[in-house]
Amino acid sequence: MLPFARVTIIGLGLIGSSIARAVGVRMPTVRITGHDADPDVRARARDLGFCDDVTDQAGAAVVDADLVILCVPVGAMAAVAADIADDLPADAVLSDVGSSKAGIAAVLAEHFPHNPIVPAHPVAGTERSGPDAGFATLFDKRWCILTPADDADAVAVERVKAFWTSLGAEIEVMEAKHHDLVLAITSHLPHLIAYTIVGTASDLEQVTQSEVIKYSAGGFRDFTRIAASDPTMWRDVFLSNREAVLEMLQRFSEDLSALQRAIRWGDGDALFDLFSRTRAVRRSIVEQGQDDPREDFGRAH
Amino acid sequence: MLPFARVTIIGLGLIGSSIARAVGVRMPTVRITGHDADPDVRARARDLGFCDDVTDQAGAAVVDADLVILCVPVGAMAAVAADIADDLPADAVLSDVGSSKAGIAAVLAEHFPHNPIVPAHPVAGTERSGPDAGFATLFDKRWCILTPADDADAVAVERVKAFWTSLGAEIEVMEAKHHDLVLAITSHLPHLIAYTIVGTASDLEQVTQSEVIKYSAGGFRDFTRIAASDPTMWRDVFLSNREAVLEMLQRFSEDLSALQRAIRWGDGDALFDLFSRTRAVRRSIVEQGQDDPREDFGRAH
Repeated sequence: MLPFARVTIIGLGLIGSSIARAVGVRMPTVRITGHDADPDVRARARDLGFCDDVTDQAGAAVVDADLVILCVPVGAMAAVAADIADDLPADAVLSDVGSSKAGIAAVLAEHFPHNPIVPAHPVAGTERSGPDAGFATLFDKRWCILTPADDADAVAVERVKAFWTSLGAEIEVMEAKHHDLVLAITSHLPHLIAYTIVGTASDLEQVTQSEVIKYSAGGFRDFTRIAASDPTMWRDVFLSNREAVLEMLQRFSEDLSALQRAIRWGDGDALFDLFSRTRAVRRSIVEQGQDDPREDFGRAH
Repeated sequence: MLPFARVTIIGLGLIGSSIARAVGVRMPTVRITGHDADPDVRARARDLGFCDDVTDQAGAAVVDADLVILCVPVGAMAAVAADIADDLPADAVLSDVGSSKAGIAAVLAEHFPHNPIVPAHPVAGTERSGPDAGFATLFDKRWCILTPADDADAVAVERVKAFWTSLGAEIEVMEAKHHDLVLAITSHLPHLIAYTIVGTASDLEQVTQSEVIKYSAGGFRDFTRIAASDPTMWRDVFLSNREAVLEMLQRFSEDLSALQRAIRWGDGDALFDLFSRTRAVRRSIVEQGQDDPREDFGRAH
């Protein structure tokens, strides 16, 4: 028994196209309809064929859906919601995949006072963007966090859970506000820092851009992968999760100042203590299957 | 014609044991002698067999060497230098693989006023440590930076160049001081930041350690790899390259403050501008063969 029979995906980038592909593999009888605001993306999606149908208008994509998933940047959610509000069937379940949740919850609740709403965030991705970047196994063994409101339709929540489980994901349910705090440290701050250091390295006068690139294997290259992520998506994440990001950033800056002081005063014990306890975190992540167990992420050597 | 016939490696961790293994594959007629201060490492190195001989005393390892490479943490260089000073043949070339160079140059020049000294830094590694972590292809297509003094023996420099080229590395020669500045941004600051954020995430009260690990695939896990690097080695790097690291850290902190302000005031354009230009750096690194061209570093999905 499939949780949904007709799934519509609005936004056919990395995440949206991966969902479509994963549904195609895991639930081949489900009908997938897609829409993207960008005509080039629609054309490419038609060529790639991961949707049964790609519509030119967002409204047309949702008219007979029983699940609609918004896979657009967080800042575009309100416009898409307004676009489909008149066409969404009254019993269709509405979901999204935004990286920040409290703000989106408010937007969706405003536009869809009667539909069951089950916001979701699959914690998965790569540095690539667009319909070519998606693949069917992206959500395998990754966590998908659902943040339904307290009064959300319990049956709809179960159906969305079943949907993501079918795509290979592990499910967790939490408050939107707590989600935003957790992701601020596990995802948003890491991206902010990576973007910053790549910018810093690009702006130096004493070290050339060519040197930065040549000697990047000393550690810097790791940060450039994250800093190659989609600029629109990430701008919207920081604007929409401002409070939590600023709080985590404040913590990080304090800790960095303490290390700066340890280096300035030659306090080797303080450095050694921190550097020793961070190893255990890596070990836990690998043990829990949240990263490739091979050294160096499995890079070719 | 091989550049050296009898190579001695002091310190049999990731880098030292990788050099031994690479010589075994690329220059199988070269005799490799090894020593490590830790008796467990010596025993393991004997079992693994990547040296022709492993000696219990550092002095005994160098008596008939024509190249001696110090592969110990930067802070241990002076003690090792003192240990081998009496036994090093007068014409043996002395090198090292330390991650900071100006300080080591002074130490080596003091202990070995007569030997040709050619300091080196192969910009390569993984997050693993110890004799089991090494492998023969670690230096393939990676840069090895030589930082000989202005009055260094030109023939010795050429021989060390030829040695590293034989191991698969690309060679660059630069001033020790400039090396320390370049590596401060491409390697030392990235490590410092990675250690810091992993520490910050571990110390939060609002987000549990278990949540940090579960949702690490959103970006955080990338930082934990670097933050699993050898604590002793990295403590010594920061203590020995203090000035350059503090300068780069100051730049980074200023840039981070600017982004913090952009987030606080909702300046999406400033965020978007930075996030757009950092993509090009990633592209150059991949084009120049300094990172795995596969998405997500080639992680299994």
